[in-house]
Amino acid sequence: MRIVVLTGGIGGAKFLVGVRAYARRTGAEVTAVVNVGDDAVLHGLRVCPDLDSVMYTLGGGADAQRGWGRAGETWAVKEELTAYRAEPTWFGLGDRDIATHLVRTTMMNAGYPLSAVTDALCVRWNPGVRMIPATDDRLETHVVVSDPDPAPPAQRAIHFQEWWVRHRGALPTHRFVFVGAAQAEPAPGVLDALAAADVVLIAPSNPVVSVAPVLAVPGIREALVGGAAPVVGVSPIIGDAPVRGMADRCLAVLDVPCTAAAVAGLYGSRRSGGVLDGWLVDPVDAAAETDGVPVRAVPLWMTDETATAQMVAAAVELAGSVEPAGTRPRPDGVAR
Amino acid sequence: MRIVVLTGGIGGAKFLVGVRAYARRTGAEVTAVVNVGDDAVLHGLRVCPDLDSVMYTLGGGADAQRGWGRAGETWAVKEELTAYRAEPTWFGLGDRDIATHLVRTTMMNAGYPLSAVTDALCVRWNPGVRMIPATDDRLETHVVVSDPDPAPPAQRAIHFQEWWVRHRGALPTHRFVFVGAAQAEPAPGVLDALAAADVVLIAPSNPVVSVAPVLAVPGIREALVGGAAPVVGVSPIIGDAPVRGMADRCLAVLDVPCTAAAVAGLYGSRRSGGVLDGWLVDPVDAAAETDGVPVRAVPLWMTDETATAQMVAAAVELAGSVEPAGTRPRPDGVAR
Repeated sequence: MRIVVLTGGIGGAKFLVGVRAYARRTGAEVTAVVNVGDDAVLHGLRVCPDLDSVMYTLGGGADAQRGWGRAGETWAVKEELTAYRAEPTWFGLGDRDIATHLVRTTMMNAGYPLSAVTDALCVRWNPGVRMIPATDDRLETHVVVSDPDPAPPAQRAIHFQEWWVRHRGALPTHRFVFVGAAQAEPAPGVLDALAAADVVLIAPSNPVVSVAPVLAVPGIREALVGGAAPVVGVSPIIGDAPVRGMADRCLAVLDVPCTAAAVAGLYGSRRSGGVLDGWLVDPVDAAAETDGVPVRAVPLWMTDETATAQMVAAAVELAGSVEPAGTRPRPDGVAR
Repeated sequence: MRIVVLTGGIGGAKFLVGVRAYARRTGAEVTAVVNVGDDAVLHGLRVCPDLDSVMYTLGGGADAQRGWGRAGETWAVKEELTAYRAEPTWFGLGDRDIATHLVRTTMMNAGYPLSAVTDALCVRWNPGVRMIPATDDRLETHVVVSDPDPAPPAQRAIHFQEWWVRHRGALPTHRFVFVGAAQAEPAPGVLDALAAADVVLIAPSNPVVSVAPVLAVPGIREALVGGAAPVVGVSPIIGDAPVRGMADRCLAVLDVPCTAAAVAGLYGSRRSGGVLDGWLVDPVDAAAETDGVPVRAVPLWMTDETATAQMVAAAVELAGSVEPAGTRPRPDGVAR
């Protein structure tokens, strides 16, 4: 069985630990298509927070307590950059993390695409799943905001990292823009993986700024909408609150309620032009209306690898039980 | 009084501490023209060992015990780069040091010349002397070597850092080449400082790979040879051994004996087309023949700031006692 997972960073990385455990038990192959919208160039270094969260987590190098970055991280470079008053001062890069960015930036400056760099970094980390950035092209999530007090309030677009890390999302916020998405192409392997997939899972990542930028790459959404594989999403919301992160803040910008059902509605049913064939929710959200998408309720707290693998098993079972709405024949040539 | 010092890194930095102390006592202004031939791009970062040695030492951030790099340095990035097997593995960048290189590289990629970047970095370090790189242009010291055993022995050129840090100079070595020197221009301020100087000092730096690359920038040697200011060199050799570093190894490549007198001969007397009006040696070398250059002998061990300032005072006195051979009028318009 071939599983493709669309994913963001930290929450998606925890989910992928469960996907990998499920795959090891069942012999499945896993491809993770990872968001790059959070990527930024900081102090001249190409930083890929979601790719690195996935790579470090699956490679055993993540800080499990803090929830992001490298285990045993130190901050000497950050302290020195602060002493130089080097901007941006609001984004702290750890020393260990910086080595990753140095290798990546050096390779990219030498002409290697991000997907090839990711392969090279994974030689060390051996994540056990194939990791592909959604695109090798520039795709940055920017946020259109107003400053709190000038009159008339002028709108400006800032990088997602500035919005979230510097301002904690606490600016009047109008919308998210995926800069470069319209011109981006899926990275090599993404469309092939989707075409060959037996099941596509959408990780319980932020639907607005983690999964949406992946789907914004022309060809990826279409591959889900029109593909043969069933697509099952895992709710990032449990009982009207995000499992972790800032989905509530991002959904509010879109005027979407912070509920499992509303997120399903945001993705939409494949029968009506969306991407979902099935939707996995927590039992506390089992009664929610989901706009015609078949729902299964299982505990969604990713407390450990075993619990997460059970979630994944439920998602795959749900995928097997639904009638995918895609129009293309399945890889074996037999329409389901 | 205006003092210009031509200098390399570590030994030159110690010397400059004494120059600064002397200048504070006498009200002199000091400009250091610093070698860039050791500069390299490592892991995408522009590393300037000599500029940084001077800046850290004068700014109170150098590791006095180790003799190079930052005090309190840590090595997390280096360990991680090694784990990635990122080349070059033979050059270790410290975490604190890397912050300097990140700021420099970011500014240079934004279009600032090295001299402007050096000014910006010195806002933090406040070295108390004006620091100018010899040139803003590319000037790299390369070393023509043979590999030990292939037959026929093929010559190849490697970067100075590779020759020294990786191979400890222990390859069959034919010559040094200052790549880019012929096309380089002195950085803004260098020629003005030399034209306005009351005395030019050559620090007890490596004559072959620290001072020679400075003099190789067209215009700088000419400014010394033809300038009004007396030029006094301080011997980097005491009793037939370098005070520190690798001058012996470099002099051997040029078939020049490792003696104070031989180094004076390498620089040459201004009366015969060289750059020296005077030569400061240690008492153990006082009897040496120096090809017509006036010599003064004072203790040259830079044991502390006071001892070094006394050396500097002796060098300035020597400068005042010699008849400079230059042809240009002094800044005040009165030929001496």
